[in-house]
Amino acid sequence: MTGKTGKTGKTGKTGNMLIAHGGGPTPVINASLRGAIEQAGRHKEIGNIFGARFGVEGIFKDELINLGALADEKIRLLSHTPASAIGSCRRKLADNDYPLVLDCLKRHNIRYFFYNGGNDSMDTCDKIHKLACRSGYEVQVIGIPKTVDNDLAGTDHAPGYGSAARYAAFSALELALDAASLPARVVVLELMGRNAGWITAAASLFQALMPCEHLVYLPELALDREKFLVDVREAYDRKRGLLISVSEGLKDTAGASLGDTGIRDEFGHIIHGGAAQHLADLIMAETGLKARAEKPGLLGRVSMAHQSPTDLAEAYAVGAAAVEAAVRGENGSMVSIEAEREPAYTWRSGLVPLGLVANIEKTFPREWINPAGNGILAPFLSYCAPLADAPAPSYASFLRDTIISAT
Amino acid sequence: MTGKTGKTGKTGKTGNMLIAHGGGPTPVINASLRGAIEQAGRHKEIGNIFGARFGVEGIFKDELINLGALADEKIRLLSHTPASAIGSCRRKLADNDYPLVLDCLKRHNIRYFFYNGGNDSMDTCDKIHKLACRSGYEVQVIGIPKTVDNDLAGTDHAPGYGSAARYAAFSALELALDAASLPARVVVLELMGRNAGWITAAASLFQALMPCEHLVYLPELALDREKFLVDVREAYDRKRGLLISVSEGLKDTAGASLGDTGIRDEFGHIIHGGAAQHLADLIMAETGLKARAEKPGLLGRVSMAHQSPTDLAEAYAVGAAAVEAAVRGENGSMVSIEAEREPAYTWRSGLVPLGLVANIEKTFPREWINPAGNGILAPFLSYCAPLADAPAPSYASFLRDTIISAT
Repeated sequence: MTGKTGKTGKTGKTGNMLIAHGGGPTPVINASLRGAIEQAGRHKEIGNIFGARFGVEGIFKDELINLGALADEKIRLLSHTPASAIGSCRRKLADNDYPLVLDCLKRHNIRYFFYNGGNDSMDTCDKIHKLACRSGYEVQVIGIPKTVDNDLAGTDHAPGYGSAARYAAFSALELALDAASLPARVVVLELMGRNAGWITAAASLFQALMPCEHLVYLPELALDREKFLVDVREAYDRKRGLLISVSEGLKDTAGASLGDTGIRDEFGHIIHGGAAQHLADLIMAETGLKARAEKPGLLGRVSMAHQSPTDLAEAYAVGAAAVEAAVRGENGSMVSIEAEREPAYTWRSGLVPLGLVANIEKTFPREWINPAGNGILAPFLSYCAPLADAPAPSYASFLRDTIISAT
Repeated sequence: MTGKTGKTGKTGKTGNMLIAHGGGPTPVINASLRGAIEQAGRHKEIGNIFGARFGVEGIFKDELINLGALADEKIRLLSHTPASAIGSCRRKLADNDYPLVLDCLKRHNIRYFFYNGGNDSMDTCDKIHKLACRSGYEVQVIGIPKTVDNDLAGTDHAPGYGSAARYAAFSALELALDAASLPARVVVLELMGRNAGWITAAASLFQALMPCEHLVYLPELALDREKFLVDVREAYDRKRGLLISVSEGLKDTAGASLGDTGIRDEFGHIIHGGAAQHLADLIMAETGLKARAEKPGLLGRVSMAHQSPTDLAEAYAVGAAAVEAAVRGENGSMVSIEAEREPAYTWRSGLVPLGLVANIEKTFPREWINPAGNGILAPFLSYCAPLADAPAPSYASFLRDTIISAT
C-alpha cells in the first residue's frame, strides 16, 4: 500500500465494521467482500462484521446482515458467487439522507466503513466521510473499487473489469467463428458500457484468431451512420463473414443514443434498449444484407464461466487492503491498483483520495482506437490481456485449416 | 443400433465418404464430425474422407475439404471447437439443384454420404437419397441429427440440445441472482427457439435455486399481453426481483411474432429482432417498472463454456453410428437417440427413416407447461437434466443466507 490521505496512525480503537455494495455487481465483487471479511477477522480492533442488505437501502432501513456469523467455508464460497451476495442498490442519496446514514453508523458503533462500488458510489462514500468528520464521529471510511465498466479514475483498472473483458473476448471470438462458418454473415454484438468503451474494446483481444472481419465501435466516438454503412459494405465484400462489436451506450453524430428507450435511472443515466438491434435493422434496411443482433447484457457481469483468475485475486486483495488501510488509520480514500506490464505484469494496491475519483468517468483513450474509428490498436491489447487472463483457446485455428485455407 | 430402414447388408464396396453440415452449428456439431471421421478411419471400405465446405454450397461449387489429410490431434480438437469447423449453410435446394448434387457425388466416387442437420436438412438428405435410388447410383445416405432447438422428430432429443439447455440453465440462474441482488428488478431473458420452446424451458432447470420470481413463456402458447402484464405485476409485488424467460419466436394471440423484423430467411422463417426487448418496453410503458432485456442469442449455441459432457459424448457417438450404419448397408435413415431415464439415464443409438423426420417440427408438450401458461413442470426437468448434465452450482444458496433470509 502506498500513498497517504486523510489522517494516519493506527486507530487501535475497538468498533464494528460495516461493508456495503453500490451499483451493479461484478463477477468478483463477492471476492472483495471475502477479502475484507477474512482480513477483518485478523484484527482484534474489529468486533462485529456487518453487511448492509441491499447497499445504502439496508443502512436506511437498519437491515444489517451479521456476516461474522457465517461459517468460514461459506465465506470462502464468496470467491465464486455471482451477483451481490449481500445485495446492492442504485439509490442516489439526497442531501438530507446522509444524516440518517451517520445515525446508523453510530447506532451500531461502526468504526470501520467500507463502500465497494464505482464512481457514483465513491461520491457517496466521500460525502459520508466528510459528514462524519464534520460531526466529529470517528469512523474510518475507505472505498473499495469495483466496476465492470473500468471507468473508475485513480486506478490502473477496476476489479470486475478483467472478468468482463474475458467474457467479451470469448463471446466475440466464438461469435466470429459462428459468423465465419456460415456463408458471409453479419452479426452485431452489443456489450456493456454506457459512456466508456473498455468492455467492448476487449472484444478485440482474440482479433488475431478471428477468421472473419471485425469492426468495433466505442461510445467515445460518435457513430456516423453513412460511414458505418460504408465500413459494413467494404468488410462484408471480403466474403469472410462480419462481426461488429458495439457498446450499449453508442451515440450518433447528433448525440442521440442508438439504444435509448427514453427512460432514465435514478442517477439520470439512460436505460438502453438495443444499440445492436438498431444497427442490425439499419444494415438490413440500407444494404439488404441479413444481420443479427446479440445482446448478452448483464450476462457479461454475472457469468461465472469467464471469471478471470487475475481479476479474482486482485478483487480479494483490494478488499483485504481496505481493511488494512482502515486499521492503519487511513480515511477518506479508495484503494487503487498500481500496475506495471514490463517486463511482466505486476501490481500492488495503493490509495487515492475519494474526492479525486468521485463522479469522474475515465473513458477509453482515443489513441488506442484506430484512425478510422472502427478498430482497436495493439497498446490496448497489451493493457488488457493480463487483466482478462484469457489464454488463447486451442480451437481457434481450426477454421483456418478448413474453410478459410480452402479459398 | 436398432431399427431397419432402406436396404441392408454390408456393402463391402470401396468408395469415398462425404460429410456436410446443414443449418446453424451447435456446441457439439464438430464432435459428430470427429466421430464420423474416426469411425471411417476404421473401415477399409472407406477411401478418402471429404467434408463439404459450407454445406451443400460446397457440393455445388465442388469445394470439398480433404479431412483425411488432417493430423489425428487436429481431429481430436474437433470435440471442443465451436461453430462449424467445415462450414455450414442455410441454402434451400430447388428441385433442379438435386441433379447437381448427384453429379458431385458421382464425380468424387462418394459411396457414403452423411448430412448432419435438423429437420430442413433431413428433408434435403431424404431427397438426395431418393434421387440416387431413382438414378441407380449406389450411395449410402445417412442423416446425423443436430439441432440446439430439439425440434427434431424421431429421436428422444437431438445432439446440441443438451449444451444449449445447459447454457440456458446457467444464464437464467445467474441473471436470477443478479435480479435478486438489486432491489426488485425485472430482467427479460430471450433464448433461441423459433417455434419450439425446448431451450427456453431449460431456463427452469435451476428454478429451485432461484432467489427471485421466474416466469417462462414458450412459443407453443400465444402470449396474451394483458394476462402477461397481470403475471408481471403479481410476481413483482412479491419484491424478490423477477426474471422472465421467453423464446425468440414468441407470438401474440393475433399470431404476430413479438420480435418480427419483417424479414425472412431462405426457408421462409422469420428473422427475429427482439421479443425480450419488446416485452421489456411493454412492461416499462404499461406498469412504470424498469425492465431490462437480454438476448445472448447465438452465444447459446456457440459458447464452449457450457458444453454438456453428456451432449458431447452423444454427438460423437451418433457421428460414429452413422458411419457404422452406412457400412452395414443401411440407407435413407437418420441416426436417432433412444433414451431411458429410470432407474438412471441410459441411451443407445437407433435409426429412423428420413421421411419420418423430414420437415417435422417437434414442439414442446403442453402437459409440461403449467396450467397458467407461465411456468415449466417437473416432468420436463427430469427429461432435460441428464441432457444438460448441469450440476447445481455451489454458489446458489448464498443469497438465501444473506439478503433472502434477512427478510
